Amino acid sequence: MTALRTDHPSVGTAAGLRLVEHPADKLTRLARHYDGAGFLAAIRSGELPAPPIADLLGFEIRDIGPGEVTFTYTPSLEHYNGIGLVHGGVAATLLDTVMGCAVQTLLPKDTTVSTLDINVRYVRLLTVRTGPVFATGKTVHRGRRTATAEGQIVEGTTGRVLATATTTMLIQS
Amino acid sequence: MTALRTDHPSVGTAAGLRLVEHPADKLTRLARHYDGAGFLAAIRSGELPAPPIADLLGFEIRDIGPGEVTFTYTPSLEHYNGIGLVHGGVAATLLDTVMGCAVQTLLPKDTTVSTLDINVRYVRLLTVRTGPVFATGKTVHRGRRTATAEGQIVEGTTGRVLATATTTMLIQS
Amino acid sequence: MTALRTDHPSVGTAAGLRLVEHPADKLTRLARHYDGAGFLAAIRSGELPAPPIADLLGFEIRDIGPGEVTFTYTPSLEHYNGIGLVHGGVAATLLDTVMGCAVQTLLPKDTTVSTLDINVRYVRLLTVRTGPVFATGKTVHRGRRTATAEGQIVEGTTGRVLATATTTMLIQS
Amino acid sequence: MTALRTDHPSVGTAAGLRLVEHPADKLTRLARHYDGAGFLAAIRSGELPAPPIADLLGFEIRDIGPGEVTFTYTPSLEHYNGIGLVHGGVAATLLDTVMGCAVQTLLPKDTTVSTLDINVRYVRLLTVRTGPVFATGKTVHRGRRTATAEGQIVEGTTGRVLATATTTMLIQS
Repeated sequence: MTALRTDHPSVGTAAGLRLVEHPADKLTRLARHYDGAGFLAAIRSGELPAPPIADLLGFEIRDIGPGEVTFTYTPSLEHYNGIGLVHGGVAATLLDTVMGCAVQTLLPKDTTVSTLDINVRYVRLLTVRTGPVFATGKTVHRGRRTATAEGQIVEGTTGRVLATATTTMLIQS
Repeated sequence: MTALRTDHPSVGTAAGLRLVEHPADKLTRLARHYDGAGFLAAIRSGELPAPPIADLLGFEIRDIGPGEVTFTYTPSLEHYNGIGLVHGGVAATLLDTVMGCAVQTLLPKDTTVSTLDINVRYVRLLTVRTGPVFATGKTVHRGRRTATAEGQIVEGTTGRVLATATTTMLIQS
Repeated sequence: MTALRTDHPSVGTAAGLRLVEHPADKLTRLARHYDGAGFLAAIRSGELPAPPIADLLGFEIRDIGPGEVTFTYTPSLEHYNGIGLVHGGVAATLLDTVMGCAVQTLLPKDTTVSTLDINVRYVRLLTVRTGPVFATGKTVHRGRRTATAEGQIVEGTTGRVLATATTTMLIQS
Repeated sequence: MTALRTDHPSVGTAAGLRLVEHPADKLTRLARHYDGAGFLAAIRSGELPAPPIADLLGFEIRDIGPGEVTFTYTPSLEHYNGIGLVHGGVAATLLDTVMGCAVQTLLPKDTTVSTLDINVRYVRLLTVRTGPVFATGKTVHRGRRTATAEGQIVEGTTGRVLATATTTMLIQS
C-alpha cells in the first residue's frame, strides 16, 4: 500500500493505485459535521483521527467541558532546544491548543475560530525531569465577533505553574 | 547497537552495552565551549547536531548576523491542526527560535538567555500551499539583565508578512 | 457661563441656562464626517478639538502619513508613579494612541476601529530628565476584519528606543 | 507661597523663597522606608501622598492583601479618546498599577520592581455609562529575579469583565 495524499477530500482507487487520504485532510473534511464540543469528543474517542500536530508532539485530550478543556503532555528529549530545555514553542503550541479548544467547545456547527494572537509567559523551566504536565484552557469571554481565553500548564506531580498564556480569537460563521 | 540515553554528559561503554548520547545532551554539553554566534555557525556547518526540535519541525538556519538571524521552514501536513491549517504553535516555535538566536548572536561564552514571554500575531494563514517561508529575528535592545527582540515570518515567493512576534528575554552570566 | 455636559449631541439653550457640549461629545459627533486621515488632520489644525485624554496627558500630533503617524510628548512629574518614574501606563496610552491612529489613517468614512489587545515592552526608564520623546505608530497589516500595527517611543535627543508595542485591532464598517 | 520643585529630595528655604517638594519627589524619597505592603497602606491611609498619576486619573486603593490588591476607578469624559470611549490607555494604566502593586505587596524594603511588559485585552467598551469599576491585580508567580501577575477590570454593578491583562516584572534588590 502506497500512502499518497490527495489534494481533494474524495478518496479513490485508480489503476491499481490506492490513494490514502492524509489524516489532516480527513479531519478537515469531517470537521464540518460536528459542533465544537462534539468534534473534540470524537477525537478523544478515536472516532476521528487526532490532528497531526497533536500526534507529532504527543498532546492528549483529558477533559472537555463547556468553555474549558484539559490536555496532557510529557516532555521529551525530541522537543529540546540547544540549551538543555524543552523548547518554549512546545509549551506555546500546547497552550494555543487548549485555549483554542476551550473556545471551540462553545461554538455551534459551521462556525470557525482563528487565533489573532497569543501571549505566553514562561514561569518555570520544562525538562524531561518535569514529568507529565496538565494544560488547561478556559474561555474568559465569548463575544459575537471575538473571544478571549487563558491557559496554564502545571506540573502533574505538584500542580506548580510552569507557563501561562492568553489569546484573542476571531469568530466567523 | 542499542540506543540509550544517559543522564550524564559522559559517554561510556560498560558490560558490552554501548551508551549513545542523545543529540540534545551532546548539544547542551558542547554549548558552553562556544559564544552565541559561534554556536549557531557550528550547528549550520554540521559541526554540532541541530537541536532536536529544529530537526523535528524542519527549521534550518540560513543567515547569521550580529543581532539578527534568518531561518527557513516549509509548511507540512504533519504540522496541521484540526481545521486544515498549520498549527499556530509551529509559527510561534519558529518565531521564538529566531528571536532567541538573534539575541544569542550578541552573547559571549558562558552567558545564557531564557525567554520570559513571547507575543505572536497571526496575519495570514499558513498552509502547505504557502510554500517555503523565511523567519527573521532581530534584536531590538540588549540590556545588562534583559533583551528584547522582534520576529517576522514572510512568504518565500512574495515576501508578504504571515506572522509577527516580540519577546523579552532574561540574560544571565 | 455654566459648563454642563448633555447626554445628547444637540446643544441647546433653555431657561437662560447655556448648555455647553463637552469636547468629547463634540468630537464623537463630528468624527463621522471625516475619513481617518482627515479626522487627524482636523485635530492637528485645530478645526476639531483634541481628544480629552490627549489634552490631559499632553500628546500632540506631529506627522500624519498613510498608515503611519508620529506624536510628541514631554514627560511630567504629574505622570509619575510612586517610585520616581513616569508611570508605564502613560507610555502604553501614547503607544495605543499612535498605533490606533496609524491604522485610522487608512480607513474611509463610517468605519471604526477598536483595539482588541496591546502588548507594550519597556526598554528604558522614562523620567523628567528624558525630555521630549517621539512616538511613532506604523500599520503592519490591514486586513478586511482586523489590522495589526507596531509602535515605538524614542528619546528626542538621541533617538534611543524607550518602549515598543504591538496591537491587533478590529475593523467594523 | 511659590511652589517650585527641587531636583533634590532635601527641602530648604533660601533668601525668603520657600521651596515646596513635589509629591512625586516626596513619595520617591519616603518609599525606601517602607516594605511594599506598608507603602501601599500608607498611601491609602493618607500618611503618604498618592502617586501623581493616580491622582490625575482618579485611581483609589480599596483592598491590599498578600500578593493581591483591588483599586476603584470611575470613567470620566476627561479620559475619552476621539471616538466616544474611555481611551484604552486608561485601562492599561489601571491594570499596570494593580498588577505592579500586587507584586509589590510581597516585596521587602529596598527591593524594587520594574515592569518589563504588559499585555492588555479589551473585552467590553468603557464609557461614562459604565459607572465605577473594580480593578484587581494578582501575583501568579514570584521568582527570585522576575515575577508574573494578572489583572482584571470588572463592572462595579454587574461584575462583568471589561478588560484583562498580564505582565512580567523584573525584581531588583
